[in-house]
Amino acid sequence: MTIKVGLLGLGTVGTGVVRIVEGHQEDLQRQTGLGIHIEKVLVQDVSKARPVAFGDGVLTDKPADIIANPDIDVVIEVMGGIEPAKSYVLEAISRGKHIVTANKDLMALHGEEIMTEAAAHGCDVFYEASVAGGIPIIRTLTESFSSDRITKVMGIVNGTTNYILTKMSKKGAAYEDVLREAQQLGYAEANPSSDVDGLDAARKMTILATLAFRTNVDLTDVKVEGIRKVSKEDIAYGKRLGYEIKLLGIAECQQDEISVSVQPTMVKTTHPLASVNGVFNAVYVYGESVGETMFYGPGAGELPTATSIVSDLVNVVKNLRMGVNGRTATLAYKEKKLRPDSQICSKFYILLHVADKAGVLARITQVFADNEVSLESVNQQPNPVNPMAEIIIITHTANQAAMNQVLDAFNKLDVVQEIKSVYRVEG
Amino acid sequence: MTIKVGLLGLGTVGTGVVRIVEGHQEDLQRQTGLGIHIEKVLVQDVSKARPVAFGDGVLTDKPADIIANPDIDVVIEVMGGIEPAKSYVLEAISRGKHIVTANKDLMALHGEEIMTEAAAHGCDVFYEASVAGGIPIIRTLTESFSSDRITKVMGIVNGTTNYILTKMSKKGAAYEDVLREAQQLGYAEANPSSDVDGLDAARKMTILATLAFRTNVDLTDVKVEGIRKVSKEDIAYGKRLGYEIKLLGIAECQQDEISVSVQPTMVKTTHPLASVNGVFNAVYVYGESVGETMFYGPGAGELPTATSIVSDLVNVVKNLRMGVNGRTATLAYKEKKLRPDSQICSKFYILLHVADKAGVLARITQVFADNEVSLESVNQQPNPVNPMAEIIIITHTANQAAMNQVLDAFNKLDVVQEIKSVYRVEG
Repeated sequence: MTIKVGLLGLGTVGTGVVRIVEGHQEDLQRQTGLGIHIEKVLVQDVSKARPVAFGDGVLTDKPADIIANPDIDVVIEVMGGIEPAKSYVLEAISRGKHIVTANKDLMALHGEEIMTEAAAHGCDVFYEASVAGGIPIIRTLTESFSSDRITKVMGIVNGTTNYILTKMSKKGAAYEDVLREAQQLGYAEANPSSDVDGLDAARKMTILATLAFRTNVDLTDVKVEGIRKVSKEDIAYGKRLGYEIKLLGIAECQQDEISVSVQPTMVKTTHPLASVNGVFNAVYVYGESVGETMFYGPGAGELPTATSIVSDLVNVVKNLRMGVNGRTATLAYKEKKLRPDSQICSKFYILLHVADKAGVLARITQVFADNEVSLESVNQQPNPVNPMAEIIIITHTANQAAMNQVLDAFNKLDVVQEIKSVYRVEG
Repeated sequence: MTIKVGLLGLGTVGTGVVRIVEGHQEDLQRQTGLGIHIEKVLVQDVSKARPVAFGDGVLTDKPADIIANPDIDVVIEVMGGIEPAKSYVLEAISRGKHIVTANKDLMALHGEEIMTEAAAHGCDVFYEASVAGGIPIIRTLTESFSSDRITKVMGIVNGTTNYILTKMSKKGAAYEDVLREAQQLGYAEANPSSDVDGLDAARKMTILATLAFRTNVDLTDVKVEGIRKVSKEDIAYGKRLGYEIKLLGIAECQQDEISVSVQPTMVKTTHPLASVNGVFNAVYVYGESVGETMFYGPGAGELPTATSIVSDLVNVVKNLRMGVNGRTATLAYKEKKLRPDSQICSKFYILLHVADKAGVLARITQVFADNEVSLESVNQQPNPVNPMAEIIIITHTANQAAMNQVLDAFNKLDVVQEIKSVYRVEG
């Protein structure tokens, strides 16, 4: 018996899926006990030249040839974006087809609806490739740590921003220069907002937090800050204190209350995430029982992402052979409670430009004392380009609400010329 | 409906299993759709005080109360060692019970027999906890990378030796002193042979190589060298050249030929494995399509290991609910071909003690040239304690057979006083 697959989209990742399915036929047959055949591929232009060859009639520009085709058992969606992908996936599910998707936007915004529909129709929906490309973080959270209570998921889940921050750190280069280079190399898009403003990472963290904490997290629950404001000075001063700046997605669960954020973070160089460089991704998971773990690998790319997709396809096909599709997933079952700012705690890094005169440091440190934020390290130095002084502070663990009060007080303090940077500190 | 579990053994890990199953009842019910109850626990002395409480009649010293008990669905084996564990597991399988085990010895030596028996009786056998404690490397190899061809698995899979090597590196301490300290802390056993001679790591690599390459690898196929001979000098010289010494298990598959070894290895400090310290484990996996990945976490310990066991138990219970036990595993299906030494290639580090006189370096380097081994770096320095000179060489990639010829030639060369160290180099 041969399982027939319809592929929605034939970009980079779709092409990788075809290469792996065609190239690994014997192994896939051994793994699943069944044959796998790519029956139809939806493209915009069937006459365009392609890097992989197809038999007559495989390429189609009519979505119904796949989603309404009774011969097709499994639909692999690699179009990206919300529509028409969402309508196609829901239509396919309504006809009993199983879904493998790499679509983080779709799963982050409509994952709950899609999983609920799939459960109602006895369909599998797998989406390992939607987060961190080739790293099997979704299967790890849902299966390998099913017996544990996960309290923290912290990851570098966007390769573009990690490439930019790595280059800034290694070359002492400015953000704008590295961004331009990344755009020329094809690592960043002409409009880089989705990456550099943290939106892509936020979608991935929505998916990971939902799975880790077994509650439906919304994209709007994620606090997002991108990397546009990260300066050469931040990176240089961070290094001097033993930190690298990384764009981290951080999802935490304490006393059943969750918080999720994406933000540039000072990561201690001894922490395993600090040495994750370039376009690589890594996800650090902390479980009550298992403790510290980390999963590292390629965050994107044709074949890494396709590996996750075809491994999901293997799962669907094994389930088809055993007749258990739609029965293996666990829907989110916990009520969502968001943690108030006053309870979200971390260390902070603060860079201030202040008047270079007597008594300033005393007034600055008094503000911290007034708000019961204690300090781990304080460094004052002349500013290299103007007559101000720079003060670089790392706090001990403090809650976000107290830090907000500190920052409000600095805004009103005449000796503070500017709050240049405030970053969370980890590790 | 409640699934009844029998636990063979109540040491550290067994106690962790009880704690997690008892403490996470609601989550386990949500994950599996069924209740899970620990019905019987096999111990040597039922009257001994235990860190966890049991109801009347749960503790037993009669194996048959578990393995021949028709009420028990799943047997968790955490006794360790080959016998009587092997007989108990096979007896339980013959009675249709599913197995979760943490027993690396059993799976490394008798895994093929056990998996074959399990398939014949429709039983699940899961053993995630047998390698690298809390790191889900087995599920990753068998499921997440099912669509890929894995060409290399390289790991720090023994926490005791990694603790010793880390301490030697960080403190400049000698092997014997650190071993003694590790024994006092309970990280190393009174007879440390299984750890420091690489036997424990070899068993784990047998399991990983079998899964990665889908062929039944035997423990006797693994070339094993322990860490007893690693000196302070090796570590200091390695550092100076940008390397850390780690006990690595390395399994490779090239052109369908496999090689598996455990040996002290110079790992480039930029490689992610170089910064895995203390009792942590990490496994680096290279797949043709996915590329480089790494999985990091606690290699042992009560709750990390128990997390892997109970997650396997969740898997068994979900399979029971769906009625598919014994149908999810893929047995090894590839013929085993071992790669000859002449084809096993790596860089090498060599430390020689030589006569300190003119022309020696020329004669040494000529030996490499004669055997077509090219050199990456050569350093000569006076020996700090005797009138000999030390030569530290890193080769380019060379095959093991050529290296053996080089070493034979050195043994015959009058100016070579001693070949102090030869290590594989990675990264």
